[in-house]
Amino acid sequence: MRRLVNDGYEAVEEMLAGYVAAQGKYVDFAENDKRVIVSKQMSEEPRVRIIVGGGSGHEPLFLGYVGKDFADAAVVGNINTSPSPEPCYNAVKAVDSGKGCLYMYGNYAGDVMNFDMGAEMAADDGIRVETVLVTDDIYSAEKVEDRRGVAGDLIVFKAAASAAAKGLDLDAVKQAAEKANANTFSMGVALSSSTLPVTGKAIFEMKEGEMEVGMGIHGEPGIKRTSIEPADKVVDQIMGYLIEEMKLTSDEEVHVLINGLGGLPVMDQYICYRRVDEILKEKGVHIHNPLVGNYATSMDMIGMSITLVRLDDELKDLLDTPCDTPYFKVD
Amino acid sequence: MRRLVNDGYEAVEEMLAGYVAAQGKYVDFAENDKRVIVSKQMSEEPRVRIIVGGGSGHEPLFLGYVGKDFADAAVVGNINTSPSPEPCYNAVKAVDSGKGCLYMYGNYAGDVMNFDMGAEMAADDGIRVETVLVTDDIYSAEKVEDRRGVAGDLIVFKAAASAAAKGLDLDAVKQAAEKANANTFSMGVALSSSTLPVTGKAIFEMKEGEMEVGMGIHGEPGIKRTSIEPADKVVDQIMGYLIEEMKLTSDEEVHVLINGLGGLPVMDQYICYRRVDEILKEKGVHIHNPLVGNYATSMDMIGMSITLVRLDDELKDLLDTPCDTPYFKVD
Repeated sequence: MRRLVNDGYEAVEEMLAGYVAAQGKYVDFAENDKRVIVSKQMSEEPRVRIIVGGGSGHEPLFLGYVGKDFADAAVVGNINTSPSPEPCYNAVKAVDSGKGCLYMYGNYAGDVMNFDMGAEMAADDGIRVETVLVTDDIYSAEKVEDRRGVAGDLIVFKAAASAAAKGLDLDAVKQAAEKANANTFSMGVALSSSTLPVTGKAIFEMKEGEMEVGMGIHGEPGIKRTSIEPADKVVDQIMGYLIEEMKLTSDEEVHVLINGLGGLPVMDQYICYRRVDEILKEKGVHIHNPLVGNYATSMDMIGMSITLVRLDDELKDLLDTPCDTPYFKVD
Repeated sequence: MRRLVNDGYEAVEEMLAGYVAAQGKYVDFAENDKRVIVSKQMSEEPRVRIIVGGGSGHEPLFLGYVGKDFADAAVVGNINTSPSPEPCYNAVKAVDSGKGCLYMYGNYAGDVMNFDMGAEMAADDGIRVETVLVTDDIYSAEKVEDRRGVAGDLIVFKAAASAAAKGLDLDAVKQAAEKANANTFSMGVALSSSTLPVTGKAIFEMKEGEMEVGMGIHGEPGIKRTSIEPADKVVDQIMGYLIEEMKLTSDEEVHVLINGLGGLPVMDQYICYRRVDEILKEKGVHIHNPLVGNYATSMDMIGMSITLVRLDDELKDLLDTPCDTPYFKVD
């Protein structure tokens, strides 16, 4: 295993200890739960609070976006495993300021079950918690509501957090998240598996030289396994699916996110961006504030996803609203 | 080869095209040289200009730090290869504002030869160019002036750029860089090679399960090749060397940089930071604004380095001076 860990069973706890020590300007543990990371820079005035989370192994997602005017708390599960209901509930208790909370996370069955139980526990305390599931991975299911959430998490979280930072109420913040989710479309490619610290093994088999377009970030099946193709051919395929799904036409404006899955060099990410930029410009589509980097990873997985967000003035404003966190800053 | 590139010989040009397209708010190509990336956010008032550079394959180093109040230009070589003299010279022509320029780069023979020739060409035009070589890799040679530059580049560049942003003259900016370099100490560990796009091969052999402490970012030999050890044992070794080299004592203050070499998960980086933090706190050493992330990579190499910077008030102020670039922001 090419990883630098100690006891694999302690990897998440040790990561969190390091994270809180390093990023102490932004975050701390919740008082009664070491699986909840809370912002030290929450607004003093009461606001809708933004709670995100899910399994570990996707860093900097989720904890990296806790800070000022973005997520107020992240609930941290084991690797590729949903957090249990207690920390989901404890996050609400830690950050609620009387205006309610919005849970946001990628659409995976385990997360849905556990966060829903957390929301019920909060409801028993009289705290209103709403939920928006991110469903941006277009190849993961035909029906939008069955799709998984991948790098689009960042976009949906950001839109909702900006709405909360503007002082909107829970219904409006939820609506912002839903609108962002409805306009966010992703598809990825994997060239390797990721490695589990506990077993020291890959989470699925992938031979050197193989790739799979459409694969999910936990190794969920894609279109088919082929030899690794040139970057432009890979990007062309993914962009073809995205443009078709979105029915994207000229003169529209989109936000582009090239998301590295962990082990793909920055060089390759920009080679891919170059091709996305060419395709969209040829089509007469405008690009607003593109992002290129490792925003939602699968530990050491080699691969990337492309996310396109159809923009209007409202979404643009929400994505451009200032925020300051260890892994995402807008000024 | 688990890379997403097209023709390997075009990888650097294609990366640069993508970079300038994506980061057009911050940078553009120099007018007459596509191997020179210049800031679009240079100060309007004349200032000492900061020029960094070296071989490609270490992104976000060097080009990622071109922007506002940090580097004014980056000179871009082929992968693991120095840029030739012409772009070094063209960078000076592109950014000089009459106050002279400072070249800074890691201490590698090819870079020294080519940048020195660039400086001579600039001198023929009456432009003064000074140079500071970064030599932070403590295991690379006994004599400090023979050592290579690795992640400490970021620290030395930042100190000098902040001095330039404060309006200091070329001698004072050079002095700031020299002071930062004299106080910056790094050592790394590699668990894999990196992969060259042109050959599709690893730049050196490293079997699965092996690691080498002290190895350079191009595969220069380290202490010895062993089985991969637990993170804490690896960190303990590196910290032992660093503390001894620096003769670090209690009540001193240091800046810590955990630098991922490309393929090491964020999780592992924070597990390592956790141990660094423990060691320094046990020793009574204070930590100021730590950094954890991929700042100077070797493409897909799995590994990391630890950099410690001995601080005084002047260096702290230089590292904390605001700047805004795609890969490094201080506010």
